[in-house]
Amino acid sequence: MTTGQPLARYAAMRRVGDMVYLSGVIAVDPASRIVLDRFDQLPEPVRAQLGETGEMSVDVFQAPVLVQSWFVLDRIRQLAEEAGGSMGDVFKLVQYFTDLRDYPLYSRVRRMFYPAEPPVSTVVEVSGMLPSRLVRIEVEATAHIPLRRATS
Amino acid sequence: MTTGQPLARYAAMRRVGDMVYLSGVIAVDPASRIVLDRFDQLPEPVRAQLGETGEMSVDVFQAPVLVQSWFVLDRIRQLAEEAGGSMGDVFKLVQYFTDLRDYPLYSRVRRMFYPAEPPVSTVVEVSGMLPSRLVRIEVEATAHIPLRRATS
Amino acid sequence: MTTGQPLARYAAMRRVGDMVYLSGVIAVDPASRIVLDRFDQLPEPVRAQLGETGEMSVDVFQAPVLVQSWFVLDRIRQLAEEAGGSMGDVFKLVQYFTDLRDYPLYSRVRRMFYPAEPPVSTVVEVSGMLPSRLVRIEVEATAHIPLRRATS
Amino acid sequence: MTTGQPLARYAAMRRVGDMVYLSGVIAVDPASRIVLDRFDQLPEPVRAQLGETGEMSVDVFQAPVLVQSWFVLDRIRQLAEEAGGSMGDVFKLVQYFTDLRDYPLYSRVRRMFYPAEPPVSTVVEVSGMLPSRLVRIEVEATAHIPLRRATS
Amino acid sequence: MTTGQPLARYAAMRRVGDMVYLSGVIAVDPASRIVLDRFDQLPEPVRAQLGETGEMSVDVFQAPVLVQSWFVLDRIRQLAEEAGGSMGDVFKLVQYFTDLRDYPLYSRVRRMFYPAEPPVSTVVEVSGMLPSRLVRIEVEATAHIPLRRATS
Amino acid sequence: MTTGQPLARYAAMRRVGDMVYLSGVIAVDPASRIVLDRFDQLPEPVRAQLGETGEMSVDVFQAPVLVQSWFVLDRIRQLAEEAGGSMGDVFKLVQYFTDLRDYPLYSRVRRMFYPAEPPVSTVVEVSGMLPSRLVRIEVEATAHIPLRRATS
Amino acid sequence: MTTGQPLARYAAMRRVGDMVYLSGVIAVDPASRIVLDRFDQLPEPVRAQLGETGEMSVDVFQAPVLVQSWFVLDRIRQLAEEAGGSMGDVFKLVQYFTDLRDYPLYSRVRRMFYPAEPPVSTVVEVSGMLPSRLVRIEVEATAHIPLRRATS
Amino acid sequence: MTTGQPLARYAAMRRVGDMVYLSGVIAVDPASRIVLDRFDQLPEPVRAQLGETGEMSVDVFQAPVLVQSWFVLDRIRQLAEEAGGSMGDVFKLVQYFTDLRDYPLYSRVRRMFYPAEPPVSTVVEVSGMLPSRLVRIEVEATAHIPLRRATS
Amino acid sequence: MTTGQPLARYAAMRRVGDMVYLSGVIAVDPASRIVLDRFDQLPEPVRAQLGETGEMSVDVFQAPVLVQSWFVLDRIRQLAEEAGGSMGDVFKLVQYFTDLRDYPLYSRVRRMFYPAEPPVSTVVEVSGMLPSRLVRIEVEATAHIPLRRATS
Amino acid sequence: MTTGQPLARYAAMRRVGDMVYLSGVIAVDPASRIVLDRFDQLPEPVRAQLGETGEMSVDVFQAPVLVQSWFVLDRIRQLAEEAGGSMGDVFKLVQYFTDLRDYPLYSRVRRMFYPAEPPVSTVVEVSGMLPSRLVRIEVEATAHIPLRRATS
Amino acid sequence: MTTGQPLARYAAMRRVGDMVYLSGVIAVDPASRIVLDRFDQLPEPVRAQLGETGEMSVDVFQAPVLVQSWFVLDRIRQLAEEAGGSMGDVFKLVQYFTDLRDYPLYSRVRRMFYPAEPPVSTVVEVSGMLPSRLVRIEVEATAHIPLRRATS
Amino acid sequence: MTTGQPLARYAAMRRVGDMVYLSGVIAVDPASRIVLDRFDQLPEPVRAQLGETGEMSVDVFQAPVLVQSWFVLDRIRQLAEEAGGSMGDVFKLVQYFTDLRDYPLYSRVRRMFYPAEPPVSTVVEVSGMLPSRLVRIEVEATAHIPLRRATS
Repeated sequence: MTTGQPLARYAAMRRVGDMVYLSGVIAVDPASRIVLDRFDQLPEPVRAQLGETGEMSVDVFQAPVLVQSWFVLDRIRQLAEEAGGSMGDVFKLVQYFTDLRDYPLYSRVRRMFYPAEPPVSTVVEVSGMLPSRLVRIEVEATAHIPLRRATS
Repeated sequence: MTTGQPLARYAAMRRVGDMVYLSGVIAVDPASRIVLDRFDQLPEPVRAQLGETGEMSVDVFQAPVLVQSWFVLDRIRQLAEEAGGSMGDVFKLVQYFTDLRDYPLYSRVRRMFYPAEPPVSTVVEVSGMLPSRLVRIEVEATAHIPLRRATS
Repeated sequence: MTTGQPLARYAAMRRVGDMVYLSGVIAVDPASRIVLDRFDQLPEPVRAQLGETGEMSVDVFQAPVLVQSWFVLDRIRQLAEEAGGSMGDVFKLVQYFTDLRDYPLYSRVRRMFYPAEPPVSTVVEVSGMLPSRLVRIEVEATAHIPLRRATS
Repeated sequence: MTTGQPLARYAAMRRVGDMVYLSGVIAVDPASRIVLDRFDQLPEPVRAQLGETGEMSVDVFQAPVLVQSWFVLDRIRQLAEEAGGSMGDVFKLVQYFTDLRDYPLYSRVRRMFYPAEPPVSTVVEVSGMLPSRLVRIEVEATAHIPLRRATS
Repeated sequence: MTTGQPLARYAAMRRVGDMVYLSGVIAVDPASRIVLDRFDQLPEPVRAQLGETGEMSVDVFQAPVLVQSWFVLDRIRQLAEEAGGSMGDVFKLVQYFTDLRDYPLYSRVRRMFYPAEPPVSTVVEVSGMLPSRLVRIEVEATAHIPLRRATS
Repeated sequence: MTTGQPLARYAAMRRVGDMVYLSGVIAVDPASRIVLDRFDQLPEPVRAQLGETGEMSVDVFQAPVLVQSWFVLDRIRQLAEEAGGSMGDVFKLVQYFTDLRDYPLYSRVRRMFYPAEPPVSTVVEVSGMLPSRLVRIEVEATAHIPLRRATS
Repeated sequence: MTTGQPLARYAAMRRVGDMVYLSGVIAVDPASRIVLDRFDQLPEPVRAQLGETGEMSVDVFQAPVLVQSWFVLDRIRQLAEEAGGSMGDVFKLVQYFTDLRDYPLYSRVRRMFYPAEPPVSTVVEVSGMLPSRLVRIEVEATAHIPLRRATS
Repeated sequence: MTTGQPLARYAAMRRVGDMVYLSGVIAVDPASRIVLDRFDQLPEPVRAQLGETGEMSVDVFQAPVLVQSWFVLDRIRQLAEEAGGSMGDVFKLVQYFTDLRDYPLYSRVRRMFYPAEPPVSTVVEVSGMLPSRLVRIEVEATAHIPLRRATS
Repeated sequence: MTTGQPLARYAAMRRVGDMVYLSGVIAVDPASRIVLDRFDQLPEPVRAQLGETGEMSVDVFQAPVLVQSWFVLDRIRQLAEEAGGSMGDVFKLVQYFTDLRDYPLYSRVRRMFYPAEPPVSTVVEVSGMLPSRLVRIEVEATAHIPLRRATS
Repeated sequence: MTTGQPLARYAAMRRVGDMVYLSGVIAVDPASRIVLDRFDQLPEPVRAQLGETGEMSVDVFQAPVLVQSWFVLDRIRQLAEEAGGSMGDVFKLVQYFTDLRDYPLYSRVRRMFYPAEPPVSTVVEVSGMLPSRLVRIEVEATAHIPLRRATS
Repeated sequence: MTTGQPLARYAAMRRVGDMVYLSGVIAVDPASRIVLDRFDQLPEPVRAQLGETGEMSVDVFQAPVLVQSWFVLDRIRQLAEEAGGSMGDVFKLVQYFTDLRDYPLYSRVRRMFYPAEPPVSTVVEVSGMLPSRLVRIEVEATAHIPLRRATS
Repeated sequence: MTTGQPLARYAAMRRVGDMVYLSGVIAVDPASRIVLDRFDQLPEPVRAQLGETGEMSVDVFQAPVLVQSWFVLDRIRQLAEEAGGSMGDVFKLVQYFTDLRDYPLYSRVRRMFYPAEPPVSTVVEVSGMLPSRLVRIEVEATAHIPLRRATS
């Protein structure tokens, strides 16, 4: 499963009993090592779902936030599944932004991943994230995925 | 219990076994949706306890920090109690400031909530918090409240 | 054990079952209360290991990061040992920088402490840390040290 | 018709033959003289239509742009009607922003006013508008409303 | 008529049917090529009318705005007259400022030129105008001067 | 004629009687949606005409202005032709710059498009244009192209 | 006499022999503890006298300076009268501004209080005054009011 | 009396009849020529009185203001005593701050020196004081100490 | 005596008994209304005395401070003489700088005016002085000149 | 030959064997001591050659660079001739700019002085040059002028 | 030998007797005209030697400095060889940085080129270099390569 | 001779025939590795010669420049003597400042080292020098010291 390969020398996640701790996730494509910020870097159906308008002057502002929001949360979902759980098991998110004005668009995307009960959540604006100034959102997730379920 | 109503679409707290995880708390009055920053937004006895001086040129600087510090920690206390515990069970705090010069006043207030054994603590200065530039302190708390105690 | 004495009024660590939570650690010498930023504040063998060059114009830039990185991680190692474990049990790190350009040097030092399996990791750049602008790195660690091992 | 009362000493519009020229319009309520920036300053049905979410941390960022966009374009519509025409006759807009990141939300609102053929349009970001820093959008409109239609 | 000589390679005005379009006007003396900003660059009677106080610490702040406001509007008046009309025919003004705090003084001067019905008006603050940072006001005017009147 | 396709949801131009009003034009290639800023994005003969030197350290500064100036004015020319006229009918330009130091190079290019009688002209420096910070020049044009000529 | 009640813990004035020394005066309403900056906070006749125009875009800039200038000087006058003298006895003023561009309007107001012989005067621009950033003018006055006159 | 030795070439105070005028006082130790900013530069009893907490992260922010406030006011007291008077005779203070956020702590210290009737007082924030950027408070005092008392 | 003519509407000095209070003095030539900043604006002998070097790159930095220092102190001397006293009677100076790095040169000049006993002195750096940004030094002086001496 | 007179106390050039070293040259007229930045400070034929357009809004931007470039290189040429050589012997230039955007115009002028083989060249942007902020270009030249040629 | 082709119109080097003077060298690939800043722009063996880690978050910071350092010094070595010498003959370097924090990495690379006796060296931080903001290092070298050796 | 030991890995000087090239010299004490900036770091007689006043508020500004100027030029003199020459043989200086306002004091010191014929000289202001922000002056010198003299 390539989604578990970290960008640097750290573990993508660690299980401790029934708890699964994830490293902070950012929107870097593991293959190309590029920070995502355009709609055409996502599959077609996702683009429509995220609200791509096709108007250049609109998408140029919204694409980076929408694309990174989706990528980050989708990667967390994948990791939860690798650990034997699902997004609903990811009960806690610490969310770092470089510009809090991005929050409304992020919030819209997160709702797609949490249609039912939302997680506990912390949101702060920080000065920067790795690996570059293009990164606008980093999310650190914690999941509760009982071992018996994971291994069954 | 109205204190458990979050400002946005997230859970105020989540219990996982004996652990209780809280969302980051800020000083927004859930009813009026106003960020607190004046002494007259708190009950009288608290104001005196926090050190309101009545001198306009003093209070104008100290009120926002003291009021938010008290509100945030008191809300955490309420949530701990809703979960069947008390402030003493809140053993870990991550504390975000927009200006670390606010730390001495915050520290004075926190001592009121932790007269005995203090929690583990992380303090960093960040660029901003939701929902607006008026917020100066956000605290993310973790509590250990054994289930049998909570439900007894 | 003097390493457990916090700088301010908070606990250096708290055990909850098999989990050990540490406060954010920064490179302040507990005795002198000075923020470390020079090679000569570390023992000789460590200095060589960190790559002191003896060239003033090189060391003046690298010393603060290298020295703080080593001190912080070494202190976390000491605390883990006090709790009956080792660095390998510290499975999760949240790492705050005031300048992300310090990351490469920090990364080099961390590898010395994690020769085998790396921890889960979150890295963000914040505006400041306590107690002063000299602090460049703060690390909040979580360890999993089963009680029976700790007390055996 | 109170909508035609300007804020300062200028004409809200001037007809020259079949052309109607409007002064730059901003979102200041003519009665209270307040710059609009909250959803509760608009009628209920409009609020829903504009996408008010009820989440404080979302609305606090989106309200000023959405509310001003709607107010300004609605006022232009009113003036066009006073002149005997409709929004479809307003064929040219010069749109000033203080922050172009507001464009996507403005664009969404403008589409509500121009379901069919869009106007010619110029958009630039300027340093400020009257009467205060709260104003984020100013629109200067030109309409073509043949006299015989206006007076028939 | 020397007032029609532009500073650069552009037309001072162009007539299209009954409409007269003017280039943006700034307060540069066509002969000396100096940006006006002192009272002594205007004729005596105008100075008194504009409110020169003779107090150096007052005039140093007010002269640039008052002098440029008068010069610019007076030039527009001259051009309107050259085109066979008068200031009353100039029905539309787009007014650029480098500092909107200059607006009150400009507004006082404009009233001198429009004692009766005011024009339609747009005001924005921009980052700069040609030919130098000394320019604080630029006004683009449009007039409606029926041809038969102009040529009669 | 693809030149008439706007970047966003607005009309490239609108005819009202004998007048043709254009939206603000910027140098974005309609096909690739890239903001032009290099000589190799223009046809060879134009490059020489604009003064490409082949010296990297010279062209890197001059290319963005020269290329955008030419593209914008050439597009206006195309639109005028689509409307049945020519550049000589474009009698009025409002020109927005993000840096007025670009004016001398722009002015040199405009002279190529107006060898004879120049248009009326307004020039201001603004804070930004759509769709991105790469855009340095936007021009809003108005043309007078009698209908009978257009349709003959 | 309520005008003598200071905002903080200091004396509003002190008599030493025939001299009366005043604390620095700012425009804070002693009852509401609000920094004045709008015309409607002053009595009607004063508003007209100060030059309120009723144009929002003019008054929004001029009100804070005019209102604070009048309030501060009027308060000094009241204090002088309480001490048995009049404005004419206030022979020395040290005047602090946060923006010297406010001087012309202040100067106009001061002339209303000193129709005859003006005081000695020092004017400097400082970075701030208590209790908040809204304060734009602070005046420290000294009066000479012979004791026998005061007590007669 | 060493307290009367100025740092530079000026008089520490000058008596004119019953009045005693002091130069602006800052917290520089006359012997070591160091700007005071740490608690350990004051005698033990004073430190406790000023509220030293022993928590590094608190004291590092509060020490400079508290120490300088005490030193400056204590020096003024000494000078008043040298002139034959006491702090109660110092009836007028002009207080310069480099950061008005320091006012609450200064105010707390001043109250220790003026338990009874407070002086007349002016407070402004300036850009800097001599001899270095470490100075945060400068106080210029005036005392009324009748000669016969001083010499009796 | 032209030296007593103020720049604006205030008194250059006021006598109250034996005390003489001066307005803040700046280096503006009363005739030309120019802020002095070049050596050639002073008489030859003064220039040599102030240390004009003739090296352009040295004088360009030192002239404004030296020239203004001399002019201001010399004007205070003239006013003291008009009041019947001398520089030695000017016992108190409040000195405002826009850049404290100018202090060493000012200090050298002041020593020329106070060869014997120096005055009491306060020095602060402020953000600006009237009438323009060229002013770097303003001095407010107080003198004690017994009336019988003045009139004898 | 007056061109050899330096502005300050340094040598304009020094010969060491066959090498001639020049001091950094800037565009200050040795007689008037004015930093050149207008076309009318150069002889007529040079102005045309440099590309003066007569359009104020163009020349105001280009004149300082073009004029200083020409003056500086021409002065180097004069010095080379005084030393018995010519511009072709000046084989090495270190060129300092305060704004590298000036490079294209400088480069155009330098080509006039080096029609054939160009020199070795280093170009950097620095923060400032003597004697004032008006200086935009400084060039340090080295020439190889064999002694026998110089003295023959 | 293509390495001798300059980016602009200047000579890459000039021999004067036994001395060889080089133009300032920057890391621009002569073929692609791209400023180098990634490891994959260098040959494999060099990358390893420079310390590429493969960790994206490390390499993204270190690559630009390491790659430019190597490229620049290697190009100087090539030029020295073209002139008949070797790196050991390059005895003098003037090194310009846009950020001195890059020095430690540069220093590490330079040691690879000077294993034995180091050159004389000057290092300063400047505001910019040609052709763009991506350039971080420019080196001007001087070599002593006796002619007979070069031509033998 | 310890003066020849460089701070980093570079040669202090290199002789090439009769020429002696020096590395850039800064005021770092080779033993303590401290950047000099106080008078008490120099021998007594030098301090007096440099103009130490003993006034703290004067010396604090002038000491860094005067001390560094003297140290740097004195070190160049020592190196010239080690090479068998004297200061008079140092015929060329490139002088880097971090603040050109330091030039007048530097110039005064340089005159002490060059009582007779001055060197050729280049002066620029750069953004920084090694090893730290305390360095304000760096001087690169070139000397001509014929070999026979050096070895005789």
